[in-house]
Amino acid sequence: MRILGIDPGSSVTGYGVVEVRGGRLRCLAHGTVVPPRGAALPVRLAALHAALGDVLRDHAPAGVVVEQVFVAASPRAALVLGHARGVALAAAAAAGLPVFEYGARTIKQAVAGHGAAGKPEVQRMVGLLLRLEAPPVPDAADALAAAICHLRAAALPPGALRGRARGRGRRAPRFALRLA
Amino acid sequence: MRILGIDPGSSVTGYGVVEVRGGRLRCLAHGTVVPPRGAALPVRLAALHAALGDVLRDHAPAGVVVEQVFVAASPRAALVLGHARGVALAAAAAAGLPVFEYGARTIKQAVAGHGAAGKPEVQRMVGLLLRLEAPPVPDAADALAAAICHLRAAALPPGALRGRARGRGRRAPRFALRLA
Repeated sequence: MRILGIDPGSSVTGYGVVEVRGGRLRCLAHGTVVPPRGAALPVRLAALHAALGDVLRDHAPAGVVVEQVFVAASPRAALVLGHARGVALAAAAAAGLPVFEYGARTIKQAVAGHGAAGKPEVQRMVGLLLRLEAPPVPDAADALAAAICHLRAAALPPGALRGRARGRGRRAPRFALRLA
Repeated sequence: MRILGIDPGSSVTGYGVVEVRGGRLRCLAHGTVVPPRGAALPVRLAALHAALGDVLRDHAPAGVVVEQVFVAASPRAALVLGHARGVALAAAAAAGLPVFEYGARTIKQAVAGHGAAGKPEVQRMVGLLLRLEAPPVPDAADALAAAICHLRAAALPPGALRGRARGRGRRAPRFALRLA
């Protein structure tokens, strides 16, 4: 099973493609999409949509994973994040893929063993789990961690993680995530 | 000049294409995009992106106008609106078009003569201005009103309206709208 994790952001979007084969995790690609900073928001969003479309085409994952959003930030920050997140979700669904969501704590738990892990710890653990030469940059690490979380969750007994599938849902694991 | 107005929403998105020729406004198309209600959010967003792509292709406007968002709602509502709005902005920029924004009061002022006009008044005035057989439904009326606002603003002296262009900006009128 091959999964694309996406960590959408208004200025930087991280992504990572992870495959599990013979019980081993393998990173096929990871990086960040950084639309031209000076460009207007619509242009940056279109660039993000196109870049994610390329990643989906190049790596043909079976599903997409994003971090669930707990809206603690301001309405303004939520609106800005929503723009990028909406584009990412639309790109995934346009490729006919189901989208899965996990809470930030669940994702950290899956890669670092505890839900309060900081960014450097997530980067380090993702690098170790995928046997990368160096820890990935923070946004890519978060995306890879989301993908790893889903691959591990799919191997767990029902109810071991809280989750919920979105999109087509054919490949939905049997745990439920809140809709964001 | 031909302009597409969009009123993005998580469940219903209104759109309207308005042209000005010889000083007269003319409605070329208007309606709503209503993705399948039962579908997951990513599927609905992809459907919205595709539908707006069709409208842009069919009517080849010179620019797109959206209402500026004053974030007064909850972070949750802002996030949900942001998803649909981001998809609409990305679709416009993917078509190579500049995107313009106007505040809700400016748009109401442009069609109804005062910034506090209610929905029925906007519907009625849009119907009259465009000589439609019946007032358009609320979401389409808001989209048409945004398009009318821009076409009228483009005919005004600089500074008469507050606005700001987004996107390529080649066709930007000389007034400034706040970035949302």
